[in-house]
Amino acid sequence: MEYPRPLAQLITQLQKLPTIGQKTAQRLAFFMLKLPETETAQIAAAIAEVKQLLSYCNVCGAITDANPCHICTNLRRDRQVICVVEESDDLWAIERTNGYKGLYHVLGGVLSPLDGIGPDELRIDSLFQRLNDVKEIILATNLTTEGQATALYLTQHLENFDITVSRIAHGIPFGGDLEYIDEVTLAKALEGRREV
Amino acid sequence: MEYPRPLAQLITQLQKLPTIGQKTAQRLAFFMLKLPETETAQIAAAIAEVKQLLSYCNVCGAITDANPCHICTNLRRDRQVICVVEESDDLWAIERTNGYKGLYHVLGGVLSPLDGIGPDELRIDSLFQRLNDVKEIILATNLTTEGQATALYLTQHLENFDITVSRIAHGIPFGGDLEYIDEVTLAKALEGRREV
Repeated sequence: MEYPRPLAQLITQLQKLPTIGQKTAQRLAFFMLKLPETETAQIAAAIAEVKQLLSYCNVCGAITDANPCHICTNLRRDRQVICVVEESDDLWAIERTNGYKGLYHVLGGVLSPLDGIGPDELRIDSLFQRLNDVKEIILATNLTTEGQATALYLTQHLENFDITVSRIAHGIPFGGDLEYIDEVTLAKALEGRREV
Repeated sequence: MEYPRPLAQLITQLQKLPTIGQKTAQRLAFFMLKLPETETAQIAAAIAEVKQLLSYCNVCGAITDANPCHICTNLRRDRQVICVVEESDDLWAIERTNGYKGLYHVLGGVLSPLDGIGPDELRIDSLFQRLNDVKEIILATNLTTEGQATALYLTQHLENFDITVSRIAHGIPFGGDLEYIDEVTLAKALEGRREV
């Protein structure tokens, strides 16, 4: 004899999520069984709605509940700077620093020829269509082979425009210990050294 | 600026679950954002249905999708033995051993006067109403202060019936090393020793 069908179903569904194996799925399912029905209904609704209510901003490509998104329509932001990121979570991470007041452009991934992802699969054309009045493009793709290749590709294609292209700094993170830092980061930190 | 509202909502809801803090909730939410809508709909439906479709068996008190449950209505099970457990998950754990063919009774908790849980809060009366034709009651509450007190309470109240009352064995688990076993378990293992 196995679990009642709806419970077995829930355990199976929860195991689709990352870092949730069978034991964790069981524990979560048992916990939900003990919650009041209003609580489980809220959790279920939140999961269902996250895909129903969110879409991609037509301008910058960020995941948003308004279109164009709140950043693209915010007139107090600096429209002369666009920060290019891979995904919406990168955008939110930068927003949390409260240190950037320009606009964004979300590529939706990185160039990765082996996975069949070329410039046409990313939101690169729509970036080039936004360059009127733009003075600076900040490339904030990640420090991976693909992220670097994507930054290089964009740099080359932006050369023809009268725009400053910059790359976010890579180096030793706050609290990082030289001894334990990987060599790519360390090389970047040396390369990006600044006179004091 | 914060996450779009439906995403923030989802992260808040996921944090209701045990072992899921803010970072894990964010990671799970981002993962769900990338799933196709049919997949998130399935997860949401499974969570909503687990409370909608399941109820407590009128006979044994187990969580079930049929009433009476599949075990209570299974005529191939031994109706002369009832195994008393605290919760439905204990029942499922015993079922997984495939070693027990009797019926169950789920108390729905343990006696805990400090939490205001007395005999009337548990399914104890309904157990006494099931004792016709029963030859043995196996007490399988956990080896905790409350579980032991509950087993003792039931033993005392079952004395007046012509029924064998037994308690599951407590002792060293499979693969357990004496050196690292807690003293309660070790004391129980000595107490429950059997001649070889």
